Amino acid sequence: MKTDQFRSGTNFILVAPQSDRTPVCMRFALLASAVSKSFVPTKTLRRLHLSSASSSPMAASEESLRLALAEKQATVDAQAEAVRALKARPGAVKPEIDAAVECLKALKVEAGAAARQLQAAVSRNGNASAACSREAFRQAVVNTLERRLFYIPSFKIYRGVAGLYDYGPPGCAVKSNVLTFWRQHFVLEENMLEVDCPCVTPEVVLKASGHVDKFTDLMVKDEKTGTCYRADHLLKDYCKQKLEKDLALSAEQAAELKHVLAMLDDFSAEELGAKLKDYGITAPDTKNTLSDPYPFNLMFQTSIGPSGILPGYMRPETAQGIFVNFKDLYYYNGNKLPFAAAQIGQAFRNEISPRQGLLRVREFTLAEIEHFVDPEDKSHSKFIDVANLEFLMFPRREQMAGESAIPIILGEAVSKGIVNNETLGYFIGRVYLFLTRLGIDKERLRFRQHLPNEMAHYAADCWDAEIECSYGWIECVGIADRSAYDLRAHSKLVIVPSKKELGLSFKGNQKMVVEALEAMNEKEALEMKASLESKGEVEFYVCTLGKAVVITKKMVAISIEKKKEHQRVFTPSVIEPSFGIGRIIYCLFEHSFYTRPSKSVEEQLNVFRFPPLVAPIKCTVFPLIKTAKFDDVAKIIAKSLTAAGVSHIIDITGTSIGKRYARTDEIGVPFAVTVDSTDSVTIRERDSKEQIRVSIDEVASVVKEVADGQSTWSDITGRYPAHVAAQSNEE
Amino acid sequence: MKTDQFRSGTNFILVAPQSDRTPVCMRFALLASAVSKSFVPTKTLRRLHLSSASSSPMAASEESLRLALAEKQATVDAQAEAVRALKARPGAVKPEIDAAVECLKALKVEAGAAARQLQAAVSRNGNASAACSREAFRQAVVNTLERRLFYIPSFKIYRGVAGLYDYGPPGCAVKSNVLTFWRQHFVLEENMLEVDCPCVTPEVVLKASGHVDKFTDLMVKDEKTGTCYRADHLLKDYCKQKLEKDLALSAEQAAELKHVLAMLDDFSAEELGAKLKDYGITAPDTKNTLSDPYPFNLMFQTSIGPSGILPGYMRPETAQGIFVNFKDLYYYNGNKLPFAAAQIGQAFRNEISPRQGLLRVREFTLAEIEHFVDPEDKSHSKFIDVANLEFLMFPRREQMAGESAIPIILGEAVSKGIVNNETLGYFIGRVYLFLTRLGIDKERLRFRQHLPNEMAHYAADCWDAEIECSYGWIECVGIADRSAYDLRAHSKLVIVPSKKELGLSFKGNQKMVVEALEAMNEKEALEMKASLESKGEVEFYVCTLGKAVVITKKMVAISIEKKKEHQRVFTPSVIEPSFGIGRIIYCLFEHSFYTRPSKSVEEQLNVFRFPPLVAPIKCTVFPLIKTAKFDDVAKIIAKSLTAAGVSHIIDITGTSIGKRYARTDEIGVPFAVTVDSTDSVTIRERDSKEQIRVSIDEVASVVKEVADGQSTWSDITGRYPAHVAAQSNEE
Repeated sequence: MKTDQFRSGTNFILVAPQSDRTPVCMRFALLASAVSKSFVPTKTLRRLHLSSASSSPMAASEESLRLALAEKQATVDAQAEAVRALKARPGAVKPEIDAAVECLKALKVEAGAAARQLQAAVSRNGNASAACSREAFRQAVVNTLERRLFYIPSFKIYRGVAGLYDYGPPGCAVKSNVLTFWRQHFVLEENMLEVDCPCVTPEVVLKASGHVDKFTDLMVKDEKTGTCYRADHLLKDYCKQKLEKDLALSAEQAAELKHVLAMLDDFSAEELGAKLKDYGITAPDTKNTLSDPYPFNLMFQTSIGPSGILPGYMRPETAQGIFVNFKDLYYYNGNKLPFAAAQIGQAFRNEISPRQGLLRVREFTLAEIEHFVDPEDKSHSKFIDVANLEFLMFPRREQMAGESAIPIILGEAVSKGIVNNETLGYFIGRVYLFLTRLGIDKERLRFRQHLPNEMAHYAADCWDAEIECSYGWIECVGIADRSAYDLRAHSKLVIVPSKKELGLSFKGNQKMVVEALEAMNEKEALEMKASLESKGEVEFYVCTLGKAVVITKKMVAISIEKKKEHQRVFTPSVIEPSFGIGRIIYCLFEHSFYTRPSKSVEEQLNVFRFPPLVAPIKCTVFPLIKTAKFDDVAKIIAKSLTAAGVSHIIDITGTSIGKRYARTDEIGVPFAVTVDSTDSVTIRERDSKEQIRVSIDEVASVVKEVADGQSTWSDITGRYPAHVAAQSNEE
Repeated sequence: MKTDQFRSGTNFILVAPQSDRTPVCMRFALLASAVSKSFVPTKTLRRLHLSSASSSPMAASEESLRLALAEKQATVDAQAEAVRALKARPGAVKPEIDAAVECLKALKVEAGAAARQLQAAVSRNGNASAACSREAFRQAVVNTLERRLFYIPSFKIYRGVAGLYDYGPPGCAVKSNVLTFWRQHFVLEENMLEVDCPCVTPEVVLKASGHVDKFTDLMVKDEKTGTCYRADHLLKDYCKQKLEKDLALSAEQAAELKHVLAMLDDFSAEELGAKLKDYGITAPDTKNTLSDPYPFNLMFQTSIGPSGILPGYMRPETAQGIFVNFKDLYYYNGNKLPFAAAQIGQAFRNEISPRQGLLRVREFTLAEIEHFVDPEDKSHSKFIDVANLEFLMFPRREQMAGESAIPIILGEAVSKGIVNNETLGYFIGRVYLFLTRLGIDKERLRFRQHLPNEMAHYAADCWDAEIECSYGWIECVGIADRSAYDLRAHSKLVIVPSKKELGLSFKGNQKMVVEALEAMNEKEALEMKASLESKGEVEFYVCTLGKAVVITKKMVAISIEKKKEHQRVFTPSVIEPSFGIGRIIYCLFEHSFYTRPSKSVEEQLNVFRFPPLVAPIKCTVFPLIKTAKFDDVAKIIAKSLTAAGVSHIIDITGTSIGKRYARTDEIGVPFAVTVDSTDSVTIRERDSKEQIRVSIDEVASVVKEVADGQSTWSDITGRYPAHVAAQSNEE
């Protein structure tokens, strides 16, 4: 998809589900050796890697099974023909016929067995059972999330809108905690310059950044009803369906479909259209014919002001707000490099047909950093703080060689040149710390390097933080060294129309010509400048006039402003870590979710093991039984928790304590205070279910200490007596 | 303005500048007695109050001066005529002519004096000199804010877009602090259910809420160029201009213009159009004729999804996201009332011509609370916590009687029935605490009650927190008891078209008819229901068909779902405090700004006296002189501040310490640590410029203590030795 390739730093390529790494890589290994570079452009390598490949060991066994089935089927067909011929022959004897029929039956049984073997192989390759359990796990998580209002499909009472979700109370609290920590971890600790720009953006800005022209997906329309589909989705669904269900596919056909799946993201509109036609793909709901694919711009368009002549869009990313302010921010930083700016805010993408719940939505929160650095010195003074971190990295070499992600020490990754430079490495390390402190599982987090042709031509190096969840490996943070592209896009283009000259030539139309000249983007302006310099005049189409006019050299002056520093003229490089907050939160939900048995054997209890940092509420307060004196103590404790700034809820319903624990475990509250006397209470930790006894005066400070992360639960348990009796209260 | 009246709770009526309260009220007092209710609808009273009134004492003296001037001018004219006649008379003698001319000159001098007197009176009434100093003050604040990047006009390098602003680094930090405190003060302390809904909203929701039909301002267009203007702005500018500059106005004319100013907000499109015509008002830039006024909807429109058939808008307020989730949130709260939900987020209004900087913008942050309560019990258990607060309130009675805002004890306001109920009173108290803790000046904060006809017909009582700044009294928070209006608007309308019946009648057009039926709002649906019940059939216009069709009873079933609680059917009342965060922040900037003399006499130093709670950065660290050992100490302190979570900057430039103090005073940093030795340092407080000496080990904890508000500066100063010598370092 053009959209996904367009800005490697800020869009989040969804990786197709794969239940385990190893077989994928093995398949890829064989594939990589099978496809010579002259045959498949390297650009497609990543997609090949992502989809199942045709020449992997499993695929090989699948192929031989297909061949075997085809042979058996051919034998069955031949025998059936023989039986028919026998029966038709005048004077055929019954025993002969019976024997032939028996033989046919036996052959059919064999063919049936071969078909089942193939079906099993296809399912295994598609990891059908793993897919089922992933699906079941996801359903369990999503059910809990929706039932406890972590999120809600938006405008549900009006039948909802695809791709729009509300965060309900606990989801909203988690999001707020994630953003607060992001601000602490990046903006405050690194002294970044945070900005907050509007979502409404005039067209001229997004024209310069390239979004107006290139931020598109290919779409087809049902020619009768007008319903729209993403062209690649239809082709993908068709191929997968065929591969899974059609056992009569020849090995060649299967290989072709797999090749199509692998190439999907690189097809042009024409290629996609040809495939749809070849396969006779029609509209899924109506079976009507489909239009040819054409690009659909994913930005929500609007109009600024009442005149209707100033087009605008809802920003598709927050980064542009930083780039257009570069000069002011540079000045704010004392005209010194390096410095970083950051922005948290909403971004908007009018997806053609959003799928996959919270992972592909039409409005989402981005947190983006633009670190501006001298292109000739990308060292980072704090790199040593992260150099010793060791975590899963998936460099280009390992991907190309079909190997797995491997643990690498970050310092070595930089010194060996695997990661392009220290600043990029520093941010990779900081992102690793950020995600794991939130509660992302280290084993299901990897940093994957972009393959050379995945990156935009101007980029120096890009790494994605990918998190594995039930949908597969999801790109949640992009960390890109984008060179100088973004600033160049906005380097100040100065167009000065001569109103006098234009007035003489165009009279009443002068205003329209002036506006059209001023609205040119850099490319158009530089082309005009070149033409004017070489030919002295140029034809220029003014859309508000609906015609072209001739512009001469005297009518307009065009120049580009350059940045200067110490007489050396250069554009700073940009290193851009870009965080899809909603995706991180969804993966966090999955990584935090588990079930444990309840007292009643059939029932499982749901738990979110959020670290206190992100838990929506840090603590609950439960009077053990419903009496005024326990309620009073609970209120005193609640007040002291408020004073200590610890978010909490108090539950004085008469429900059993076990039920109340279960209820708050399910929204991930890490600590519960149970009031069972008037001078001391118990504090229970969610995951261990351990309890300690603490005096009422101390409760708030103890809870604050563990909730703020100053101490761990095990630090605390040594200091206070364990409370054992109440364990039996658990459900 | 329709927009301003439409939802009294969430829009922010800008009150015309008034330099002091008393004269306004005096004027209003006279006015109120002058206009009988039968003459001016009470609806207009507020507007009369806001604009200068024609029969105030000052206006009266102005009127007599106008009369005097007119008389003098008439005498001058008569004498001039006499002189001309005399000169024309054959045989007139020179001495006679000279005497007449002398007399004319004397009369002209008198007339000139009268004109100057009138001019002075007009200026005094308009508070011209006060207006000048307000303007100068505002310029000083705004210059500082823009220079230090508190905010930046958005997309400046592309010549900007009116009504869109970026928050730069210190502004962004202030905003983030204000929102964090809001969340702490309201959401956490009150256990509110926070939600986070998308900005993109489908039309059906905003149709139900009334915004699609009524969220408009009246606009006129330059008939030749198409440039748009707010009709009331043009009329207002014309009237003000005339009153200030045209000394030849008769008293009657002046009174009429003032009356028009007073009535401005209540004019219909026709009335506005008639006035524009009467006065011959043309387009300000071109003098072209203007179109008739017509309503312009202020929502940014867009289209959701690729088909182009699902219209959507950027939300004009955040409240609707809460209302549509009411049922889920009610369930989340255990099906119990009262409870409150809250949302912080962006809202969008496509203003026709934004004015007044940060106060009227096209995109802004709202923080809204919807407190749902049983309409028969609006008591509040925590009201007692705020009952003793005393602050400026401006009840209806005082406004109608032309008196000033008066200090009232909140408990009495409720017990005397001035404030409708405890819950409303509780929120008024909480808002007061919120604003004053942010640093809003108590003396320039008042709670003004809506006059009966200012409120929507369904509202029980509304109070605005108004903050006085250089633009006048600005509504920054609306606190409205909105009865049950909002929930009723979304009570589930169930429209079930019978596709079979419709298919039989409309065949190929069935789909369009079904969609049109489903798209009806409650009013339309209920009207159809009534017609179908009485007449059995009804004409129904289907816009996608471009014609009306006949709908019969069999074709559609319409019903409204009701909420039930304990068998008593009722819709909860909503009490809605709604905060314009950008407006609060702008007023906070003005209230915090002051200047003090620098060493160089001509120069004034700018200071923002932000409380630590909102200060963008809590602390700066300055090595007194540039040496490695001081730099090292500074770095150690910076590290301990980071560990303590105190935001800070370190400035190791060699600039004089006074200059560095001045630089951070200007962005409102409350504390500065100066490293002048290797074992202890000084801490300086911004406003008192006092310094204390603290050991290096203690610095971070001391700064944290005052920055977090656990202690005040004066608490601290007693505990540490004062440092006097360095005072002389101040600029």
